[in-house]
Amino acid sequence: MLSAARIKFIRSLSTRKIRAAERLFTVEGVKPVAELLASGYKVHSIYALPQWIAQNKTLLAKSKTEVNPVTDTELERITQLSTPNQVLALVFMPTNQLSINTLKDKLVLALDNLADPGNLGTIIRVADWFGIDTIICSENTVEQYNPKTVQATMGSLFRLNMQYVSLENFIERYKTAYPTHPIAAAVLGGEDLYAQALQTPCLLVMGSESHGISPAVVDMCTHKLTIPAYGASGAESLNVAVSTAIICAELRRQNK
Amino acid sequence: MLSAARIKFIRSLSTRKIRAAERLFTVEGVKPVAELLASGYKVHSIYALPQWIAQNKTLLAKSKTEVNPVTDTELERITQLSTPNQVLALVFMPTNQLSINTLKDKLVLALDNLADPGNLGTIIRVADWFGIDTIICSENTVEQYNPKTVQATMGSLFRLNMQYVSLENFIERYKTAYPTHPIAAAVLGGEDLYAQALQTPCLLVMGSESHGISPAVVDMCTHKLTIPAYGASGAESLNVAVSTAIICAELRRQNK
Repeated sequence: MLSAARIKFIRSLSTRKIRAAERLFTVEGVKPVAELLASGYKVHSIYALPQWIAQNKTLLAKSKTEVNPVTDTELERITQLSTPNQVLALVFMPTNQLSINTLKDKLVLALDNLADPGNLGTIIRVADWFGIDTIICSENTVEQYNPKTVQATMGSLFRLNMQYVSLENFIERYKTAYPTHPIAAAVLGGEDLYAQALQTPCLLVMGSESHGISPAVVDMCTHKLTIPAYGASGAESLNVAVSTAIICAELRRQNK
Repeated sequence: MLSAARIKFIRSLSTRKIRAAERLFTVEGVKPVAELLASGYKVHSIYALPQWIAQNKTLLAKSKTEVNPVTDTELERITQLSTPNQVLALVFMPTNQLSINTLKDKLVLALDNLADPGNLGTIIRVADWFGIDTIICSENTVEQYNPKTVQATMGSLFRLNMQYVSLENFIERYKTAYPTHPIAAAVLGGEDLYAQALQTPCLLVMGSESHGISPAVVDMCTHKLTIPAYGASGAESLNVAVSTAIICAELRRQNK
């Protein structure tokens, strides 16, 4: 049985402040936890229904993690999601470093002030699909350890290096290191995505849901891309995760 | 002041069953309601903060709708969303007919058993961007009037014809009417999207988040498309709204 103190502690991790102070976050659900255990992330402890524990004995024996059997009721008390799913893990936040030298041959994604945790999670999954292993986030972008973000990544979070930095400083450093690499901003009213042959490696910058990329960052970019609408579309814009996916797919197609 | 009975009635519309019985649904927020009032949809009544009413006097004079000023507290009581936003409208469900003859020159989208209301809303917005005006949904697909769906469409819902039918019956009729039109299924492990020159007009079929397209429907399709992952991606799949967007963008690019 879980102690009241432990339940309280896990529940407290639903806020970003406590997560940052404890350097811990939660991962929930059968598939995300399976991906977690297959990754290099260090697990603090696991809380799972007895049937999940029975089904994952081999995996758990390898990881040597503290495993706590819980009841359905206990799982409902500690979940950060609307529907708990068999297992919750407490995970240590990694301390990845950003080394600009590793970005030379890569398609790199930068996010300016993204606000929606579900969008961030979907973008992490998209990046993983298109072979992007580094995402640079502006400091005010929603946190990658938000429970809704972790959920939406479907395990892709554990394969990416996420860095929260000043985006303007980062772009300065990227330009100095790679003066001929394109830096592409996704904007409304820019150049037709398909009319340019944009080379990778490059940096692709996506902006916030409500305000797009901040003007200071757009000014630092070498290309301004727009996904053309078809005909007299009444839609004003696309969802940012959708736009990211369309542009990444096109960059990979053009540079096969 | 709103009567308790009216508040109870509006709140009851949060369930699909009551919406279907009353033939009414809710639209919330400044932008969605603006798009609603510009559309041909018939509005039952509006519940809005006094400042919204003052700012929309001209629009309201034209629409001759019943307008009820409400307080912040009343709006919080009737909202179907986590964060209310100035205005809520009750709207009559339209009774669009599906005429197979109108689909001859179109790119048409079909959804098989989609479960997530946010995904459906994002897909409706994507369709609108890419000039698709008809979406055929299997009968067990999540309802287009779910408050989360309406919210995610950002107003695009009012520009599309949505039809809930037996997908198998529909494809039979489509094939009979247009025997040479491609019917493309988005699947895992199909043909490379970019290796085929798929012509529009055509029918594009997308499947559910967990199970993809049902086997009986896949069997009726003439093409099986897959978005190629890049390199040794660890991701198993893409979100369905993201996949829909990438394929629609590519079909429009190829058939410009």
